[in-house]
Amino acid sequence: MAKMSQNFKDETYSSFLFMNELRIPYKTLTATLREILLKYSFEPDRAELCATLFAKANLDGVASHGLNRFPFFLKDIREGYIDVNAKPECAGSFGSFERWDGNLGPGNLNAHDCMGRAVSLSKKHGMGCLVLKNTNHWMRGGNYGWQAADEGCIGICFTNTKPNMPAWGGSEPVLGNNPVVLAVPRKNGHVVIDMALAQYSYGKMYTYKSRGEQLPFDAGFDEDGHLIRDPEKIIENELALPIGLWKGAGLSLILDMIASVLSGGNATCDIGEMEREHAISQLFLCFYPPKLGTSPLPGEKVDAILQHLKSSSEFPDSDVRYPGEATRARRRENMEHGVPVDKDTWEHVLTLGSGLNS
Amino acid sequence: MAKMSQNFKDETYSSFLFMNELRIPYKTLTATLREILLKYSFEPDRAELCATLFAKANLDGVASHGLNRFPFFLKDIREGYIDVNAKPECAGSFGSFERWDGNLGPGNLNAHDCMGRAVSLSKKHGMGCLVLKNTNHWMRGGNYGWQAADEGCIGICFTNTKPNMPAWGGSEPVLGNNPVVLAVPRKNGHVVIDMALAQYSYGKMYTYKSRGEQLPFDAGFDEDGHLIRDPEKIIENELALPIGLWKGAGLSLILDMIASVLSGGNATCDIGEMEREHAISQLFLCFYPPKLGTSPLPGEKVDAILQHLKSSSEFPDSDVRYPGEATRARRRENMEHGVPVDKDTWEHVLTLGSGLNS
Repeated sequence: MAKMSQNFKDETYSSFLFMNELRIPYKTLTATLREILLKYSFEPDRAELCATLFAKANLDGVASHGLNRFPFFLKDIREGYIDVNAKPECAGSFGSFERWDGNLGPGNLNAHDCMGRAVSLSKKHGMGCLVLKNTNHWMRGGNYGWQAADEGCIGICFTNTKPNMPAWGGSEPVLGNNPVVLAVPRKNGHVVIDMALAQYSYGKMYTYKSRGEQLPFDAGFDEDGHLIRDPEKIIENELALPIGLWKGAGLSLILDMIASVLSGGNATCDIGEMEREHAISQLFLCFYPPKLGTSPLPGEKVDAILQHLKSSSEFPDSDVRYPGEATRARRRENMEHGVPVDKDTWEHVLTLGSGLNS
Repeated sequence: MAKMSQNFKDETYSSFLFMNELRIPYKTLTATLREILLKYSFEPDRAELCATLFAKANLDGVASHGLNRFPFFLKDIREGYIDVNAKPECAGSFGSFERWDGNLGPGNLNAHDCMGRAVSLSKKHGMGCLVLKNTNHWMRGGNYGWQAADEGCIGICFTNTKPNMPAWGGSEPVLGNNPVVLAVPRKNGHVVIDMALAQYSYGKMYTYKSRGEQLPFDAGFDEDGHLIRDPEKIIENELALPIGLWKGAGLSLILDMIASVLSGGNATCDIGEMEREHAISQLFLCFYPPKLGTSPLPGEKVDAILQHLKSSSEFPDSDVRYPGEATRARRRENMEHGVPVDKDTWEHVLTLGSGLNS
């Protein structure tokens, strides 16, 4: 049985680089991606924002949803799954609630626009909710949590995905891992959680597979329904473990229902019928405490909660942190010393840029 | 390593009675509790509703949050933690969002009133949200999910609790298990999930302890931070395992922040300072699809999602079900054959009633 205090390290900030990583200045990374997006016919301001959202993922230590996905993002554009110039449109307005159509535009731009709109609705009404259909993968979901919190909002968003987890008792993928983001603003560092409903992402499992290692905790099922930690088998079976076993499976199902019913868009079962994951559904919800007359001030309460958390006694070699704490540490270091990127991916992206005319 | 298909059985509907159980007609159970509550100075209609909410928990197979808690509920009344005649009051109104004060009234009546108000707000605005401070344990949270769904609403609610789970890496309880309820209405049976953020409730762990059995899956930590399944040790250490390990720990923290910041009420760390858990904070959120012009009709989409789920291939001896499916089966059987109650608890409750003057 794994010792938690040892395995805790696995999920945490480390200042060393992986074997095949190099550091690129944040501005260089953003500018490079921006230039490529311009060649892919993005309007200049949208190229800038899209590049920034990719680069921010690496800056914050989430390379799996940043540069590493960029080549696949371009492939989806080339093959017609993403319309670079499509913008989300309002399809129904009901006071503090709005329904939007993503028109198959770039998922990160759509999500950024829609969280921005949910922020605006909450600043007007105290609370604002926006549902979005026909959008694409939002890449790093945490970006939209930080975005809401930077505006002083409590932000919640979630997305559905293609089927990639089994139902509880099921032997094939029928549920999405449906990432959920929750953010609470705070002067000295927002509290932001960005988590898929699978215990480990497939990206994380590929990393362990490439190192020939087992996952530190149960991560999925084998073909007989036993819990296992072997990334190779889990990837092969597409049987990732929902967080909390039956609980995460149920949560995934209901979040998919809420996003697809309210947006009128596709559910995970619809997405599973497509040749590639696209045209997915999302929900964005914001609360703006100053408009809701909160007392005591939100900052004081949040600080008190974090102070209590941080004063917890710890297991040996463990370090109790709040969600978002390590992100800020990474961001500071990477802004100063350069953003870690996978060398092969970086070189591949550079060739993608050089082969196109602007 | 436990086989999922075997352990799945553990969480499911079984039509047999446990050794010390007997069946009581639902009406008898409700009437008995109602009579006792009248002797505790409840107004007649509130005694009726409070008794019904307790009895419904047993009816639906959640005795741990029904009759089993009734003696402790009465104790809290006798010792002044619950004010039987206190009613929730609106402390701030912002269109579709309202802030209420529970005035330390009975937690289940407060929660029922507040979910009812969130339903009304959503029927008026399309979406409605209510935050509640100074309330008490809502007993069986699922009741409020079924309540919202019976009104045709998508309902979401959560509550904070006293500290009863460790932070990730922490060796003492600092987080609440903060139960979350999500409900989606459906003509042929609502989809309702009612889950605490610990893998197992302490009630469930006490049951295993009394049988001298280990939990079927990892359930908490020993004093060295190892994952264990031994209910006795986990109860002793108060180190229940958050669902999804670090993920559930983070989720618990943020839900506590949201409930306490928006309501202006106590956070888990405040509740931990009290001599007994009370004056807690909750949030109730409803969406009313007909007011939001959803298309296709919510029922069609939900049915299609469930059909896809139920068509999943299964591991041997497993049965894929949706949250709420087993509840309806239990409810039908218990309404017909009588509601299972623990014999000792039932006899104890009868003595509680007979010792008081009305």
